[in-house]
Amino acid sequence: MSAPEWADPDLDNTDLDNTGLDNTDLGNTDLDNTGLGNAPVWSGAALAGGLTGPAALAPLLDVAVRALADGAHLRAGPVPAGTPADVAAAVATALAGNALPETGTDPATALAGLATALSAGTADPADPHCAGHLHCPPLAVAVAADVVAAALNPSLDSWDQGPSATALEPWLIRALAAAVGYPPDRAGGVLTSGGTESNLMGLLLARDRAAPRLTGRPAAAHGLGVAAGRLVVLCSEVAHFSVRRNAALLGLGEDAVIAVPVDGAHRMDPAALTDRLTAAVGDGLVPAAVVATAGTTDFGSIDPLPAIADVCTRYGVWCHVDAAYGGGAVFSDALAGLLTGLDRADSIALDLHKLGWQPVPAGVFLTARVKSLASLERRVAYLNPADDETAGYPSLLGRSLRTTRRVDAFKLAVTFRVLGRQGLGRLVDACHALAHHAAARVRAHPRLSLAADPVLTTAVFRWQDPAVPDLDRINAALRRRLLREGRAVVGRTEVNGAVWLKLTLLNPHATTADVDALLAAVVRAGDTEAATR
Amino acid sequence: MSAPEWADPDLDNTDLDNTGLDNTDLGNTDLDNTGLGNAPVWSGAALAGGLTGPAALAPLLDVAVRALADGAHLRAGPVPAGTPADVAAAVATALAGNALPETGTDPATALAGLATALSAGTADPADPHCAGHLHCPPLAVAVAADVVAAALNPSLDSWDQGPSATALEPWLIRALAAAVGYPPDRAGGVLTSGGTESNLMGLLLARDRAAPRLTGRPAAAHGLGVAAGRLVVLCSEVAHFSVRRNAALLGLGEDAVIAVPVDGAHRMDPAALTDRLTAAVGDGLVPAAVVATAGTTDFGSIDPLPAIADVCTRYGVWCHVDAAYGGGAVFSDALAGLLTGLDRADSIALDLHKLGWQPVPAGVFLTARVKSLASLERRVAYLNPADDETAGYPSLLGRSLRTTRRVDAFKLAVTFRVLGRQGLGRLVDACHALAHHAAARVRAHPRLSLAADPVLTTAVFRWQDPAVPDLDRINAALRRRLLREGRAVVGRTEVNGAVWLKLTLLNPHATTADVDALLAAVVRAGDTEAATR
Repeated sequence: MSAPEWADPDLDNTDLDNTGLDNTDLGNTDLDNTGLGNAPVWSGAALAGGLTGPAALAPLLDVAVRALADGAHLRAGPVPAGTPADVAAAVATALAGNALPETGTDPATALAGLATALSAGTADPADPHCAGHLHCPPLAVAVAADVVAAALNPSLDSWDQGPSATALEPWLIRALAAAVGYPPDRAGGVLTSGGTESNLMGLLLARDRAAPRLTGRPAAAHGLGVAAGRLVVLCSEVAHFSVRRNAALLGLGEDAVIAVPVDGAHRMDPAALTDRLTAAVGDGLVPAAVVATAGTTDFGSIDPLPAIADVCTRYGVWCHVDAAYGGGAVFSDALAGLLTGLDRADSIALDLHKLGWQPVPAGVFLTARVKSLASLERRVAYLNPADDETAGYPSLLGRSLRTTRRVDAFKLAVTFRVLGRQGLGRLVDACHALAHHAAARVRAHPRLSLAADPVLTTAVFRWQDPAVPDLDRINAALRRRLLREGRAVVGRTEVNGAVWLKLTLLNPHATTADVDALLAAVVRAGDTEAATR
Repeated sequence: MSAPEWADPDLDNTDLDNTGLDNTDLGNTDLDNTGLGNAPVWSGAALAGGLTGPAALAPLLDVAVRALADGAHLRAGPVPAGTPADVAAAVATALAGNALPETGTDPATALAGLATALSAGTADPADPHCAGHLHCPPLAVAVAADVVAAALNPSLDSWDQGPSATALEPWLIRALAAAVGYPPDRAGGVLTSGGTESNLMGLLLARDRAAPRLTGRPAAAHGLGVAAGRLVVLCSEVAHFSVRRNAALLGLGEDAVIAVPVDGAHRMDPAALTDRLTAAVGDGLVPAAVVATAGTTDFGSIDPLPAIADVCTRYGVWCHVDAAYGGGAVFSDALAGLLTGLDRADSIALDLHKLGWQPVPAGVFLTARVKSLASLERRVAYLNPADDETAGYPSLLGRSLRTTRRVDAFKLAVTFRVLGRQGLGRLVDACHALAHHAAARVRAHPRLSLAADPVLTTAVFRWQDPAVPDLDRINAALRRRLLREGRAVVGRTEVNGAVWLKLTLLNPHATTADVDALLAAVVRAGDTEAATR
């Protein structure tokens, strides 16, 4: 080991025999010299917290803000012009070809360089022409709140890693439970990394409820035993792919997922659901859960929740609603009616990093009965000893699949206070209106074809020309052309095996003129692709 | 719906028949009026990104920094004095008893109030007397970098939600792979939410490799089938509780985990591992994985990695190393030798929000062979269509269990550049030295008893007095007393069924005097508890 000049871990020269712990003279060993301020490199070791943290943090935040602006000006659009290789080369240059150098450098310089590169090379959802995905532009106030969470770094797995954070999260869960129509005092839940984790939690609780019916033993303790391969999950054929992925993770296998047909508006057909459930039971399979979708990724379609809840009640099956996208409608007076029946779900996934304008992650898992979370509970000596709980120290460890956990509830709390339910609803309404505007424009344009009327904030469409073959290739290519030219981020999906495009309109400050210009760019790019092939 | 004054989603009056999309006059509908600036509430809807984002963000970051400082002064210590009920009451007051009000309020006021409350009520790991958990004080530069990630909000599940972020993460994975001794071009991995998720990924890959040996079918596709209940996982009896929790999640059941005895230094006994493996195979069980621990939560003990790797090779079992805590030793010239054999693991969990001084989350999952991640790969029409990949657009979707995913790699990239490998190592060494100092002080004090010599940065000890019974109650009570008085956050655990205390020293700027004062406070609190009972 090379001798560090600022801290000598060799304590042999300390008077270890001295038991007078109050003798602060003992503090004057060389460990006191942390080298902070000795050199620019070591100012990089300054902490964000404590009494001195804010002074260390403030100038670096100025650097970050300047770099955000510099990068945005360099990019000069929704996405950097060029190929993926060009973007990769710029990142490699910013890293000087080594992500973990031996020695350090000045923090302001390092931060400015890398942050400018990240910003210059990003797809910025705050640009109205970045409309490809459920990828929202975050609110400035939510980002500022997130800094507070990062600097204090509370963790929610024990009270003594975050007293105020531990007190805060349940307020957000209660508020969201009330917003979806759950009785807030009986419901429970937790913040998650996103819809995929929230859907996993719903399926986990459903699996652990269903498994004892097969084996007489809880799956959590004893595994799936001979029951595995007999538990099934039903969802519509256009449900999110994470349902299958999570079924595999839980040991049920992707084949355990039974796809239920949808109607012409991409909504699960409740009669078909009943047929599939009856057939499954007849085949000796045990339905563990039905996953309804409130807001499919492409069409925003919302399964008929009351009818599905009826079927689930009749069959005694856990009803999970993936409302990761559509859940935002609860904030809107105009759109909340789309979610009628949501309160009858056993569990719900929400994503406030979609229609909630939060930086990722801001997933939410809710369950109608907090006691359903029992299969997550753990007693861990170093985190939640029983006598601490008896003494009044609460623990959220048993709410989450994670252990260490950031207080993502804080940015939600600040956002909710700043906008209120009505303010969030207006942002949802603005995006919804933009989607209807886009659909109307598409419908009226001879070179564009609309797949379906918007339900939430998306419009699925494609470039068309009856005289031109190979529309799939042209639509795929025009989208890549728009990326390569740095002009737009347009979504892409498949409808009946064909390539379609999609505007996912999550920027509430985008204007109808922005949407018009975006569609015009799509038309031009399609015309160019058609002409050059 | 009440008519919003700033955006009218009724577009019926727009000239929808006009197909001239380039006609920007069409932009002048009322949707253009987003109401920003109309009132303080609506400035709360300003975005963090784009060309105007930095100007909206900067004043709010100032508010956040001031609130951090105000809260720290109000708290005036490592943790707020008072009971959990007192902390909860302060949070309730800050929320005005409603986490989701109907209408909004001024963003600066809302942020200042809630951020001050969060800060005043937190346990701040930057305070040298906050030493309870693997709960690190984050570096200011890492927090500033995290703001950039939050403001731009890239998501790693598709290239077009984060071109530069998608290019960046593999650099960090390669650098960390090299740091643990993997061949960086063959290895693979991903950033995770923490050790629990990284351990889950290791067990998932192990399960999916082992399942076909039983059923001839991959678990990912077909579920565990009749194999379930026969796959087992072995780890030491002091391994992290997430191994059991994850076994339950994966459908193996907690009972699938076989606890291997440890030696006197809390390290897995390789001979006992061989015995347990032989017995398991003899019983018709199929070992899917051995989980070795490099840095247990309490003692920091590191299982004998080379011997365990030998056993795993002999039995053909997946070797996962939970190095969530101890992995930080790779940065230190003095301590890296503790991790000899780590490069022989099939997969590894690291947590840079422990010995890496990052805001949560900064988990890392690494695997020696990137192709091991195949069971995570998915082809999703809206995220990674095949022709986009052919055209050079990479996708990280198949790396993670999540879908939407923040670029936590960015704060790591900035930190690594600022400190370098050596700088991080010096911070690790400083904490290690503090633990040795604490142990020496404890050993020399008549009222304190040391459980074991420190390995990494913890010291497990307790208050003692041969004349006093009920040491468990006194140690538990003195710890709560220190919390209640706002004096210190000391860890707590169980050793052989008894209550012990723990200093988890993760603040590299703490001094030996800080440690001395902390131990003195423990002694006084223990004396008080002993005297008052």
